[in-house]
Order: sequence, then C-alpha cells, then structure tokens
Amino acid sequence: MKLKPALDEIYAPVQTCLDQIEESILDILSTSNELSREVIRYFFANKGKYLRPSLCLLGGAFSNNETTIRAMIPVASAFEIFHSATLIHDDIIDSSYLRRNMPTVNAKWNAQVAVLVGDFLHDRALQTFFGTKNDRVVSLFLNTACEVCDGEILEFKEKNNFNLKEGLYFEIIRKKTASLLSACIETGAILGNLSLDQTLALKNYGLYLGMAFQIVDDCLDFTGDQHAFGKTLGSDCDAGVLTLPLIRLVSLVSEDKKSEVFQIFKSSMGREKLDYLRNLMMEYGAIEYSMDKARSFTEKALLELQVFKQSPARKSLEDLLDYIVERSR
Amino acid sequence: MKLKPALDEIYAPVQTCLDQIEESILDILSTSNELSREVIRYFFANKGKYLRPSLCLLGGAFSNNETTIRAMIPVASAFEIFHSATLIHDDIIDSSYLRRNMPTVNAKWNAQVAVLVGDFLHDRALQTFFGTKNDRVVSLFLNTACEVCDGEILEFKEKNNFNLKEGLYFEIIRKKTASLLSACIETGAILGNLSLDQTLALKNYGLYLGMAFQIVDDCLDFTGDQHAFGKTLGSDCDAGVLTLPLIRLVSLVSEDKKSEVFQIFKSSMGREKLDYLRNLMMEYGAIEYSMDKARSFTEKALLELQVFKQSPARKSLEDLLDYIVERSR
Repeated sequence: MKLKPALDEIYAPVQTCLDQIEESILDILSTSNELSREVIRYFFANKGKYLRPSLCLLGGAFSNNETTIRAMIPVASAFEIFHSATLIHDDIIDSSYLRRNMPTVNAKWNAQVAVLVGDFLHDRALQTFFGTKNDRVVSLFLNTACEVCDGEILEFKEKNNFNLKEGLYFEIIRKKTASLLSACIETGAILGNLSLDQTLALKNYGLYLGMAFQIVDDCLDFTGDQHAFGKTLGSDCDAGVLTLPLIRLVSLVSEDKKSEVFQIFKSSMGREKLDYLRNLMMEYGAIEYSMDKARSFTEKALLELQVFKQSPARKSLEDLLDYIVERSR
Repeated sequence: MKLKPALDEIYAPVQTCLDQIEESILDILSTSNELSREVIRYFFANKGKYLRPSLCLLGGAFSNNETTIRAMIPVASAFEIFHSATLIHDDIIDSSYLRRNMPTVNAKWNAQVAVLVGDFLHDRALQTFFGTKNDRVVSLFLNTACEVCDGEILEFKEKNNFNLKEGLYFEIIRKKTASLLSACIETGAILGNLSLDQTLALKNYGLYLGMAFQIVDDCLDFTGDQHAFGKTLGSDCDAGVLTLPLIRLVSLVSEDKKSEVFQIFKSSMGREKLDYLRNLMMEYGAIEYSMDKARSFTEKALLELQVFKQSPARKSLEDLLDYIVERSR
C-alpha cells in the first residue's frame, strides 16, 4: 500500500508563493466596513487546504518562469475567495453549523450576514480576475461561476429524491465541484502560457481530480472522523442530499429495505442514523464501490499528465491524486 | 402644482428598446435547470418599473444613434437582472414576504433557493457585461457591485442603532441605491460614446436621482398605500432599518419621547406601530423634511442636465425627476 503523501510535500514547488496567499487574500478583501472585516478575519483565520490556489500555482509552475508564477498570486487567492463565498452561502443552504471545526458564519452571525459577506467575497474575487486583463481567464471564470451555481441549484432540486441516478449525481458534482478545480489549474496553465494541448490536459486533470475529490468527500461524510474532517458528519443526509454511497446502496437493496433506508434517511436520529447507514453501506460494499469510482477518476487524471515530461510540478500533481483518495479531511 | 408625469411618456424615446427588455432578460437567463426557470419566470412575470434599463437606454439616447442604442439592450437587461439579484437577496436579509404585490422568492420557496437563484442572476448579469468587451463598462460595473454590497452590509450593521446620523444614512443610500442608478446611466453614456463631461454629468445626475429615489422610497414605507407601493408597509422598521424620516424625528424629540419611540420601533405592533410613527413624523414635519431633502437632490440632478441641449432624452430625464418625487410606487 502506498504511503499517504503529505500535503506540504506536494505543495513544495509552489510553497514560497503559497506562503503569500493569506496576505494576498486579506489584501484583496480589505475594506473599511467593520462588520465585513470581522467576518473575514474570522473565516480566513482558519485556513483550509488551499487546494484551489495550489492547483492554480502548480498549473503555472509548468511555465518554469518564477516571475510568471509570482504574478499569479492574486488570481490564486481569488479562487480561494470565490470558493469561500460559495462555502459561506452553502452553509446557509445546508443549515450547517460547523466548518473547519469552527461555527459557520450563519451560525456565529446569521443567514443575513452570510448572504451579504458571501456576495462581497464573490464580487471582490471577480474584480481580481478582471484585473488580469486576460479575456480567456475572465471568461473561463465567469462560465465556471455560473456552472458552480447551476450545479448547486441542481443538487438542491434533487434533495430527498430517493430515485436519484448515478448519472445525475455525476453531473451535479462535475458542475458544483470539479468545474472549479479544473478552472483553477487551467487558469494557471493559461497565465503560464502553456501550449493548447498542455492546457487541455491540465483542464481535464482538474476535472477528474475534482470528481474524485467530491466522491471521497461524500464518503467521508459517512465514514470520516469528525474532528479530522472538520465538518459535521452526516451533514449531507441531514440536508437531504443523496451522494454516491447512498445512491449505490439504494440501487442494491430490496424495495422493502429501500423504504426502511428512506425512513431512516429522513429521520433526525443523528449519530444512530449515521451508524445505521454506514454499516449498511459497508455490508453492501457501497463505500468500496464509491472509492473505486474515485480511483477510476484519479487514474484518468494521471493519464492526462503524460503530455508533460517529468518535473517537480508533475510529481506534485501525481502525488496530489493519491492524497485526494487517502485523505481524512 | 406640477402634474405627475406618466412613466410611459417619460420612457417614450427608448420605448421600442424597452419593449425588448423582457425577452432579453429571459434570453440571458435561459437555463435547462427547471427550478431556476420556474423561479425566474415567477419573478420576472411581475415587471418592475424598469428604471435601471431605462436609465441606461436614456443615457445612450444622447448618442442619437439608433444602432448604438439597440446594441445596449443586453446590458440594460443585465442591470435589471443584477438589481433583481440584490432584491432577491435583500428579501432574505429583511425577511420580507411581499414584493410587487407578490410573495417574495424566500416566501414562496425558501431562503436557500433565494440565495442560489440570486447568485445565478448575479453571475449571468456579469457575463453580459463582460460580453461588451468594454473595459470601462466592466470595471464600472464590478466597482458598483462591490459598492452596493458594501452599502448593504453597512445598513445591516447599523440596524437598530437609534443614534444613526444623517451623514451615515446618506452614505448607506449612496452606496446601496444611488451608485447603481448612476452606473446605469453612465454605462449608457460610455457605450453611446458621449464626451467625458457629458458622461460625468449623467453619472452625477444618476447619483442625485438615486439619492432622491431612495429617500422617497423610505418615506413611502411610512406613508404609502400598500397596494400601489407593492411592498409591505413598515418593512424598514420591522427589519430594524432606520431611514431619514425616523432619523429626523429622533433628532427632534425629547429624550423621554425618544425612548418611547424606540420602544414602539422595536415592538411588533404592525399597523398600529406604523400609524403611531407616521402621525408623529407628520407632527414633527419629519416627512416634509425628508421630501425636501429628496427635492434638493433632484434639483442638483436637474442642474447637471444643462450640459445637454434640449432633446427628447433630456426632457425625459427632467420629467423623471418629477416622477421620482411624486410617485406612489
């Protein structure tokens, strides 16, 4: 079995730039508005994995041009800001109260503040993209923002639909998660002036990585350790969102069992509900099936990297795929 | 006393373009997502005053170039879409249940749908602005979007602050309302290739008109006829938002009376609360004072128009100022 690669080793080729992301984020979000500042300080004090800025910078790293890569710091930061805006709005939508082991903005303040600060982050991120004066980058970002939103509306519409099929689930996660991760690395490639086929390879890599990332996330919602995961376990279920392990389970059980599972899914039993569903998923191999799907996506992502010769950036992207699948947070 | 000008007469110089706004809005917002379509059809079935698209087109009308004006239809529509996005989010923030005499999106669906569809509208509006490929227009819009959001956060922060001063109130309404109306007409001027001083005059006209518009709106929230106004009366009070008539009233009454007014303001007495506050405002001349302020802004706006020779567009902008002050909706 492979050793789980550490995130800081994976990020090593772009670490000096990553070290400046936090400052850059706060710089982009500077405002005289006290309430906004308070919320922003609170939210960003607890750093995430910086997966989106890292992908952007790693995409740019293939340019082998330090100046070019450094110039990407604001855009890489803007991806994290945009992602944060969607998280803040998501937490209203799913009524979540824990994110990165801290109360969410809507829990600590309220839904109103979460709506407004989310909008503010979104707009500042956009300003930053526009500041690149690169039409491909701006256009890619705008299309992606629409796609993310579309995916979220689709997910919302399919809540509590116990007949949700795998195909539609994949469409939802492609739009709401994979499209953004793909846009991050494609943007790095565009700003790094990579060739069209290299850019396309990274775009696809990001898409496949994103699919795997979301599937693993959805498994962790059932099987994870709450502290390591940093989110309330079972939050998808509680919000009525069906994800791959559950869709798989439902497709395998008898009609009678399906009704029982649905009753439990709709109930508010908390920990017991989660244990019941996880045990059933283990019994029917639904988690294993989902993780296999995730791995099939990382395999596709790996193939895309063949267009590049060996380099630290390529090695990082390879290791990142293993990290995504093996991670616990 | 002047006769109240009718809105369709004011809009006459750009009516043929305005007739296409609805179709253009639905075109920009076309999506295969059923839930989004349902909400969009519902929201836009009930047309507003189209003040923002009209200002954009009237700004462009000074170009006297029919082709140029027609080309502005998507951007004019995008202003209405952006405005609608802020309304949909505002109604979450203020927990409003009535808008244009119909249940709000958060009332008919819920806050989650309102967050998502608002985001979707916002993103599509942006795509449309970016489609102009005009950096001044995109940049103006992005700055305005940030300013509107900033104004709303400021308003939120000052809720229930009974010591709110006029100066801060003016800053809030300049950001949350006037900046957008100003951007609409400035955008029309930019796309109409007007001279810099003409563009600046229209920008200022929009700013003053916007200040007057919001002050009148805030008065109507106390004195309006609910059906004509189309919104729940007293909604500002109910949301804890202090507006000019109330700020003025508070500045005039004794300390004892101030405590009484505050108690009433904070209560949930509905119609009785509104009657009490309105009567007191009438007694102290606070409504009259506020309307005088509104008129002083429309006078400033009128002066800005002197840079233009007489034309149907100039006449419309003059009449619009009277309409703003005399309107009941």
